[in-house]
Amino acid sequence: MFPYKTSFHLDRKSKQALYLQLANQFIKLIKDTILPPKTKLLGSRSLAVLLQVHRKTIVACYDELALQGWVESVPKKGTFVNASLPLFYQQKIKSTKEATMTKKAGFQFYRDAALKSNQLNSNPKFQYLNDGISDVRLTPINELARIYRGIAQKKNTIDHLSYGAVYGNLELRKTLVNYLNETRGLHISINNILITRGSQMGIFLSSKILCKKDDIVVVGETNYSAADATFTHQKATLLRVSVDENGIDTHQIEKICKHQQIKAVYVTSHHHHPTTVTLSAERRIHLLNLAKEYRFAIIEDDYDYDFNYNHAPILPLASHDTNGNVIYIGSVCKTVAPVFRIGYLIAPKEFVDEAANLRKIVDRQGDALLELTFSEFIKNGDLDRHIRKVMKIYKARRDLFCELLKDELSDYVIFNKPKGGMAVWVTLDKKYSWKIISKIARKHLLEIGNWQRYNLAKTNHNAIRIGFASYTSDEIYELIKKLKITMREVEKL
Amino acid sequence: MFPYKTSFHLDRKSKQALYLQLANQFIKLIKDTILPPKTKLLGSRSLAVLLQVHRKTIVACYDELALQGWVESVPKKGTFVNASLPLFYQQKIKSTKEATMTKKAGFQFYRDAALKSNQLNSNPKFQYLNDGISDVRLTPINELARIYRGIAQKKNTIDHLSYGAVYGNLELRKTLVNYLNETRGLHISINNILITRGSQMGIFLSSKILCKKDDIVVVGETNYSAADATFTHQKATLLRVSVDENGIDTHQIEKICKHQQIKAVYVTSHHHHPTTVTLSAERRIHLLNLAKEYRFAIIEDDYDYDFNYNHAPILPLASHDTNGNVIYIGSVCKTVAPVFRIGYLIAPKEFVDEAANLRKIVDRQGDALLELTFSEFIKNGDLDRHIRKVMKIYKARRDLFCELLKDELSDYVIFNKPKGGMAVWVTLDKKYSWKIISKIARKHLLEIGNWQRYNLAKTNHNAIRIGFASYTSDEIYELIKKLKITMREVEKL
Repeated sequence: MFPYKTSFHLDRKSKQALYLQLANQFIKLIKDTILPPKTKLLGSRSLAVLLQVHRKTIVACYDELALQGWVESVPKKGTFVNASLPLFYQQKIKSTKEATMTKKAGFQFYRDAALKSNQLNSNPKFQYLNDGISDVRLTPINELARIYRGIAQKKNTIDHLSYGAVYGNLELRKTLVNYLNETRGLHISINNILITRGSQMGIFLSSKILCKKDDIVVVGETNYSAADATFTHQKATLLRVSVDENGIDTHQIEKICKHQQIKAVYVTSHHHHPTTVTLSAERRIHLLNLAKEYRFAIIEDDYDYDFNYNHAPILPLASHDTNGNVIYIGSVCKTVAPVFRIGYLIAPKEFVDEAANLRKIVDRQGDALLELTFSEFIKNGDLDRHIRKVMKIYKARRDLFCELLKDELSDYVIFNKPKGGMAVWVTLDKKYSWKIISKIARKHLLEIGNWQRYNLAKTNHNAIRIGFASYTSDEIYELIKKLKITMREVEKL
Repeated sequence: MFPYKTSFHLDRKSKQALYLQLANQFIKLIKDTILPPKTKLLGSRSLAVLLQVHRKTIVACYDELALQGWVESVPKKGTFVNASLPLFYQQKIKSTKEATMTKKAGFQFYRDAALKSNQLNSNPKFQYLNDGISDVRLTPINELARIYRGIAQKKNTIDHLSYGAVYGNLELRKTLVNYLNETRGLHISINNILITRGSQMGIFLSSKILCKKDDIVVVGETNYSAADATFTHQKATLLRVSVDENGIDTHQIEKICKHQQIKAVYVTSHHHHPTTVTLSAERRIHLLNLAKEYRFAIIEDDYDYDFNYNHAPILPLASHDTNGNVIYIGSVCKTVAPVFRIGYLIAPKEFVDEAANLRKIVDRQGDALLELTFSEFIKNGDLDRHIRKVMKIYKARRDLFCELLKDELSDYVIFNKPKGGMAVWVTLDKKYSWKIISKIARKHLLEIGNWQRYNLAKTNHNAIRIGFASYTSDEIYELIKKLKITMREVEKL
């Protein structure tokens, strides 16, 4: 006889009912053909005695197995393993506790090597460089959580818990239309806005609608690497034009347009990523004129609009666009905190509609509760107050960082003090390499990170982008000190 | 002289500083070449008198314009509109209050007609049919909001506010690994799971990694329409096999495999969408064997696992997969509420890694605060308690709905009482058409919705999927009554 007594292990403390534990163990034995098709199972009375459980447990287990199709009951004859079950060609699972899902897939799929990125291990002893992120310690998290909970408790919130508009929550769309028209000189209506999850989704949706294989997208000679990866993933061809102190060179774009149809220009007008310069007024107008004449899209990723220390921000290209050429992308991720994935894509209605159609199969919709929270946060003036507060702090940090960089490291690097944003573009003397610095810095508990990503165009500019906004003054002193010790050591190599 | 006095409109109540209002109006005049390049602007003293503002306001305005590059100051000569500004070929904006962004895009882009869907207008007087959604009135919203706020107020939450893991929050991944291993018989580790935004993102990421143009995906003869749209958008070729009372016909899949390499089979094992049947134990094993032999992926979308009224759920295909063939997709959207976009994609590590790489350019990351909230919600047993509660309610609603459907409408429709899920597959007598019923129903304040979408394979089965879970008993009575009145009227046409 089959060794029933030793084949089952019942855990009376488990949350799972005994009959189900038993049934699942039977299924495993049946799948592994330890109990092959047509096997007659022991009668419920005898099995109950053997396993020391109530007979009802066995009856429930056999019923369950029959309902699921693993066994068949033949009246007056007993219970049999289903004769029509195919043999199961799987590896035997040794223990149910063990993770047995294989590492390798048993099927073919497509890989995009360009999307691969190095994950840095997080070590609290280390100081990490970043390319310009906000200081999350300044996030008005209590205020936001309070608003969130308040919204969740409102009676009419029930209307927002089911499937909602693909375009995003209507309240937030209205709020943003007013806010952006008022503060950024846009002239949009509710039909021109789609709420996205951060700016990246705006870039993703745009690239997918604009580009197929070999379509041309123009970008700066070094550019925001995630945007490059997104266009490249769509198999677009990237053409690079120079970036100088006035931003992306629009005359080079004009030359390209005379010979080739381009689909889009991606521009971080304010401030160019990674070099931090502002696109000048002249080039803005020139670019808009070119877009009109050659019918291409300008993807304006205005991630840094809120952070201008020397003068008011220049109004976005989108505020001047009356020919439907600009796709304007922004978010609160830099301004409030990256965790709040609230962004927007602003464009002519027909483009917004197509982006919404596509978004439906990407993730169906955003998070209405979070969207309502931000609608409230903007309307009650909290966002503006928050921006004013952090602006002052970041400006002071920029000043300190640039001063120390100049005083302590000007033997090794050159840079221009940025007029805005959260980072400095730091060019290293060609005598040195970031690769070696990166290695030595680690000894001094400083992680420089993926410095390679700035050399997208292989021009060997030898520069990286170093964020200052996320560090307190003490941390800035520490950072510069570590960099200096590192450089002294590198110098002696 | 240029009519300065009448050309500017300053609003002293506006949040915007006067000098900025003035500067932005200057910019508009410059762009519109009402003030063409080289124009000399009025001196600050005279302009201050004309506009009745302090001279400092004008100086600040001219400084701003100079910093932004619109004007140039020539010492001892005055302020001039920048001579090198190009002419701006845009339509003139009549009023800054007006929404002027065009409807039409000034560039070419790709449209996917298959993604277009009809938006139903929401009218509170109407009752709306759905295809099986949860009753959001049962959402434990206060509990979730309380957990959310608690998490937001924890000190170490700061670590979760910045850019986080593309794979999703580590806490939630650990919690789900334990939870799914325990409740669904999976054998996975932390390396096998990516947190997605609902099931749809899992389908999207999978389809994008698995399919290029002309790759073959096998689906049921009628199938979940959003999945079809997702594969079609990737230019995959859909091959359809029959679905009977045991689910998708695996023997037809075997026949296809003998002649063609297929990339994937998409299956809603539990319960087939839209027909609500369960994939039998035999076919599950058969399908797994085929996947191993012919090296294709099984995309198992187990959206309905939690809702089985007649017996325990059959363990997922993924629980039996030791050859790396199954991509297992699920979410809490059906179980808790659609607004909470928390889902998971479970697969062999190398596939999960590729999905994470891709996800990075889609929307960068999920919402760590919401993910932590659900980790807590699952760990403290709230999710299980919620499932037990709504299971009872939905079972009673199924019983009532099916009873009334049988008693009141069996002259017109046939159906099988589903063993689980939130919907019934209702087949209409071929004498009638949903198109006409839909039209008449609207007169009785019943909106049947997009009934066309179930006829994807053009087999004219004349059936639609009607959800019951989201209605109270009163609403079910009302719904059946409206359907009956409608049918009586249709009968007489």
